[in-house]
Amino acid sequence: MKATLDITLYLIVGPSHDTGDRLALVRAAVAGGVTLVQLRDKTSSTRQMIADARALKQALAGTGVPLLINDRVDVALAAGADGVHVGRDDISAQDARRILGPNYILGITVKTLDEVRAVDPGIVDYASIGGVFETSSKHNPDAPIGLLGLQECVAALTAGAPGLTRCAIAGIDEGRTESVMAAGVDGICVVSAITKSPDPQEAAMRLRALVDRAKRVHERAFV
Amino acid sequence: MKATLDITLYLIVGPSHDTGDRLALVRAAVAGGVTLVQLRDKTSSTRQMIADARALKQALAGTGVPLLINDRVDVALAAGADGVHVGRDDISAQDARRILGPNYILGITVKTLDEVRAVDPGIVDYASIGGVFETSSKHNPDAPIGLLGLQECVAALTAGAPGLTRCAIAGIDEGRTESVMAAGVDGICVVSAITKSPDPQEAAMRLRALVDRAKRVHERAFV
Repeated sequence: MKATLDITLYLIVGPSHDTGDRLALVRAAVAGGVTLVQLRDKTSSTRQMIADARALKQALAGTGVPLLINDRVDVALAAGADGVHVGRDDISAQDARRILGPNYILGITVKTLDEVRAVDPGIVDYASIGGVFETSSKHNPDAPIGLLGLQECVAALTAGAPGLTRCAIAGIDEGRTESVMAAGVDGICVVSAITKSPDPQEAAMRLRALVDRAKRVHERAFV
Repeated sequence: MKATLDITLYLIVGPSHDTGDRLALVRAAVAGGVTLVQLRDKTSSTRQMIADARALKQALAGTGVPLLINDRVDVALAAGADGVHVGRDDISAQDARRILGPNYILGITVKTLDEVRAVDPGIVDYASIGGVFETSSKHNPDAPIGLLGLQECVAALTAGAPGLTRCAIAGIDEGRTESVMAAGVDGICVVSAITKSPDPQEAAMRLRALVDRAKRVHERAFV
């Protein structure tokens, strides 16, 4: 059965040689309000990725929070994860959906208007827009799109794939959450705002409160 | 439909930024007698791997020579390859078979007697034994098993998985083919013996002739 997608507060975790700590971090983040978790690992062996994904899936058991795997359909299927997130250097959304079938969540990163226009809402369940700001969590060869770029992508998505769930990614922290949410996304995707916090649960709670408040204001304004 | 496995002369090709040349090389090698091709790429992006695999699959169209992908079930399924080969850092054979289903070739590398004993002939279609000798094509952290190690593995495979197809891998060239085949394998797996030859077709023809002759002698001796 396909897991329920809630993109409100989306946490990406990377490869780790310290799985114990990472599992504790993910549990704390979920206790604080994270609604979706992604494992992004471009360097570990496939065997290690599958072991890490299984451990994360186990740590999330009973929380209702789905686990997605960046790029790797093989890892997702082997570990019993809930879906896959693809970017421009990864497997195409078409290929991923064909292999996964309908019962997995599939998300895509979009950064340019061309990429936004290519989004097929019959194939993907959500779009992650960005990088919005500079980030220390990932090497991005091209420039951040900024709040204006985010707004342009949101408008193009609204036109081309109305109703498709969307979030913003890259460099988002507490101070930027309001302005990002005001651009018209359903949630935020973060890495270091939670993983580098001395108190990941508290960090997640504060981010979650900001996103929830923005969504309430947005609903009052537009519905 | 599952492709027909013939392990007589098994060629591994790596990632390439010069796909045109690589496709020509593979075509020449197959014209010279290569019976099985594997794409082994631990560094390229998934999107690049899938594009490379599709190009190789197209280059092999009509030859009857199957294309296997090292480790990556996702790439194999996306590109329509014929199977997957797994080593100790890759997806497990069990996970790979579960995802692939019965209609794909699945091979495994074995180097130690423990690994040989863990081979499940109900899951894998062949075992590749080695590294037998030192190789320049891949970084192997542990020592080569040599001809004696190869013979031990063959004996253990014959006991535990009688009838399972097997080949030898690593550092095999023309001069070593006779002794490797005499250890009791069904074929040889090579990289540089063909890819680094100035005439890959001629190199494949000479290796193929040596393997074929060894198999004829072996049949006369043991049947």
